[in-house]
Amino acid sequence: MARRVTGPEIERLIQLLARLPGLGPRSARRAALQLVKKRDQLLAPLTDAMRTVHDRVRVCSACGNVDTADPCTVCTDPTRDGSVIVVVEDVADLWALERAGAVNARYHVLGGVLSPLSGIGPDDLDITGLVERASDPAVKEIILAVNATVDGQTTAHYVTDRLEGLGVKVTRLAHGVPVGGELDYLDEGTLTAAIRSRTPF
Amino acid sequence: MARRVTGPEIERLIQLLARLPGLGPRSARRAALQLVKKRDQLLAPLTDAMRTVHDRVRVCSACGNVDTADPCTVCTDPTRDGSVIVVVEDVADLWALERAGAVNARYHVLGGVLSPLSGIGPDDLDITGLVERASDPAVKEIILAVNATVDGQTTAHYVTDRLEGLGVKVTRLAHGVPVGGELDYLDEGTLTAAIRSRTPF
Ligand SMILES: [Zn+2]
Ligand SMILES: [Zn+2]
Repeated sequence: MARRVTGPEIERLIQLLARLPGLGPRSARRAALQLVKKRDQLLAPLTDAMRTVHDRVRVCSACGNVDTADPCTVCTDPTRDGSVIVVVEDVADLWALERAGAVNARYHVLGGVLSPLSGIGPDDLDITGLVERASDPAVKEIILAVNATVDGQTTAHYVTDRLEGLGVKVTRLAHGVPVGGELDYLDEGTLTAAIRSRTPF
Repeated sequence: MARRVTGPEIERLIQLLARLPGLGPRSARRAALQLVKKRDQLLAPLTDAMRTVHDRVRVCSACGNVDTADPCTVCTDPTRDGSVIVVVEDVADLWALERAGAVNARYHVLGGVLSPLSGIGPDDLDITGLVERASDPAVKEIILAVNATVDGQTTAHYVTDRLEGLGVKVTRLAHGVPVGGELDYLDEGTLTAAIRSRTPF
């Protein structure tokens, strides 16, 4: 700001809020003002919730999900099919698949994708943990639910190689037209895949 | 979520984050995950910053700005022209004018605009405080820097009426073409105002 109009405390709050995904500098300022205005209704409870999460939430040592319990709610849920492990890049993907109710299985969060350009190699992802879990004879199928990006597919190939010889079936998500998607907005690769994998009407 | 995949602590954090302006449910989830991942680099310092703001930031009893000091940094700044008060709807507007370095004056935050439809009347805004400040013989001009909306202009008219007889000059922001603005994207009212208020080249 041209001149100082407020104490450094709010400036610091704005700077930290701006580091949240989805908030730029402008919306971080609005968010900070909203917090000051709603001191009791929003600022106090949000501060509490953040402290609780800071103190109690951990990364699941088995699957990489985040939870207050370790192993996490998913890993200890006895109603899930323990013979299937869905491999995802990120916790957000695990949650997205769960919101969709897409599969009743366990998960494994890689924590990213292989990306030579960004210097992310196999040791930066939790692939060893996956191989270990996949070595359990009770595990029959690994579903690779990584993003359909170049890095995602490179990662899928690498993981498949690492799982070879364990006697576990490795599958991947189908390509096709998104539900509600309009054909003329889709790229050629998706359209070709959708034609190839066409199903009886 | 279809089934529970994590403890209620993170769900609560997501719900509260989603109440910040600029964050919807989807980006609130991403923000919560980012906070968990960057526990020490982001979650801890942000929690600290929020607690500090909660404990120390107040609304200035003179002008409505938010600051750790009351009266605020602006109100006690001796280099500002105390004869001019810029009236704004919101603290965000005060900060925007300061970032622009638009004027070296004091401010008065109304805390909103008159809005019969939303049930917001004069008593919901800090108009009495403004009249009191404008009654000081040292104050010579009130600049109404409210938004160029219907409610903003209604508020400007009402405030002008309330200031009548105090011997203070009341002005408002000029209408015109925004700097960098393209004419064919502007509404007719703006174009007409820009023509009427044209200046020598
Ligand atoms: Zn787990
Ligand atoms: Zn003040």
